[in-house]
Amino acid sequence: MIQEPLYIIKVGGNIIDNDEKLSSFLIAFAALKGRKILVHGGGKLATKLANDLSVPQQMVDGRRITDGETLNIVTMVYAGLINKQLVARLNALDSKSIGLSGADANLISAHKRNHPTIDFGFVGDVDQVDAGFLLSLIEQGLNVIIAPITQDKNGQLLNTNADTIAQEIAKATAKHTPTILIYSFEKKGVMMDVNDDTTLIPAINAELFEKLKVEKAIFEGMIPKLENALQAVNAGVKKVIIGDATALESLVEGKTGTTIY
Amino acid sequence: MIQEPLYIIKVGGNIIDNDEKLSSFLIAFAALKGRKILVHGGGKLATKLANDLSVPQQMVDGRRITDGETLNIVTMVYAGLINKQLVARLNALDSKSIGLSGADANLISAHKRNHPTIDFGFVGDVDQVDAGFLLSLIEQGLNVIIAPITQDKNGQLLNTNADTIAQEIAKATAKHTPTILIYSFEKKGVMMDVNDDTTLIPAINAELFEKLKVEKAIFEGMIPKLENALQAVNAGVKKVIIGDATALESLVEGKTGTTIY
Repeated sequence: MIQEPLYIIKVGGNIIDNDEKLSSFLIAFAALKGRKILVHGGGKLATKLANDLSVPQQMVDGRRITDGETLNIVTMVYAGLINKQLVARLNALDSKSIGLSGADANLISAHKRNHPTIDFGFVGDVDQVDAGFLLSLIEQGLNVIIAPITQDKNGQLLNTNADTIAQEIAKATAKHTPTILIYSFEKKGVMMDVNDDTTLIPAINAELFEKLKVEKAIFEGMIPKLENALQAVNAGVKKVIIGDATALESLVEGKTGTTIY
Repeated sequence: MIQEPLYIIKVGGNIIDNDEKLSSFLIAFAALKGRKILVHGGGKLATKLANDLSVPQQMVDGRRITDGETLNIVTMVYAGLINKQLVARLNALDSKSIGLSGADANLISAHKRNHPTIDFGFVGDVDQVDAGFLLSLIEQGLNVIIAPITQDKNGQLLNTNADTIAQEIAKATAKHTPTILIYSFEKKGVMMDVNDDTTLIPAINAELFEKLKVEKAIFEGMIPKLENALQAVNAGVKKVIIGDATALESLVEGKTGTTIY
């Protein structure tokens, strides 16, 4: 077994939307040594295209209600435009990359979300990740760039949360090889005061997380991310790092960001 | 070397646009035994999306002048929506498929077309195909489904003719393994009279092609396809078959369609 870690890196929407930050991120991603998988969402482009096409959008708990037209829009934007632009830019940085959705080679099996009160439409929840196929591509020296579209066993495409996909991939690859999951975005990491970089919390374990949650000492929007992170660690992921998308090397070396272990 | 042929199958736009014909084609494709690569274009969907977004479209000699906005549209429609829908439907038919553009893993290198009088915009002409990577995926039991988007070495995505991509892939794989190129569409094959199926020409070689061309005995729109086909045969492709997309097995067995050899 190769002991050098595999990095599963989720890049946040605010980075995708900002061409300068995206360039810095892609340079940092290309420069990061080792085996890498990138999971991206769509930033604001899907919402913009929906507006241009007069397809009304409805968000519930930060999730996009996905009717048939919206599914076509997110498939075009995530698996088409953004995925291929990221691949082309990384290739031009000599960081050879292949872009896939969860449907390709049945990489990520999912089912339509069954919620007791809300009809999310064509939204998928992940059942299984084919880690073996992912690792076979990585062993050929490729970065794998993943768009958050999956499919069910009837051939229905499904819009799927990119944070969850990153977590599920990390849990699956962790069974085969040491895996580090990185949630990279526009902030320095998890902070006591979201507007004050000096309040960065360098490391969080389950015990500290419970304490911070009870004390309401962390930004509420960060709680699901941290719960996801702890769940990944419990499932065998070596560590989860949350931090600045343009400083991947420092994140990996523990010089910045928040490490969940 | 495996002697069972590799099929490179181009499916025409009129099939993509017609859900009933597309279903028949996908069932025939899934049922066809052996190693398979599918190359698709976009049918009328890209033009429809451009109209919905009020992006004017200009065609010259059947080729789409591709400005920046049009490039985004074809990338979304070809590499996103159509590619992933084809993949998901084939997977559901138990014909495990992976969808790629020419940018993925640097599969197809291209350069921006340099035309003496017409500025085609972001239109690519193919330089090279990585047949080794394609064959490595196929050896894993996957069909490869290819959208006609390529990139140049600076990371610029380029809109590229799907017929040409199919031909270039066939020429590249023919150097490694016996390859048969199939142009499948809504007609029975090459016909003397385009409206009369009984005038189907079952086989054409270079000599007959010159004769038919001089006599103006074949439909003019078919001439570039036949020139492409003969060029592929000259470059080592075993044969090229032109015919009905919903009758792949009969085409392969030589029971229908036009064979160029």
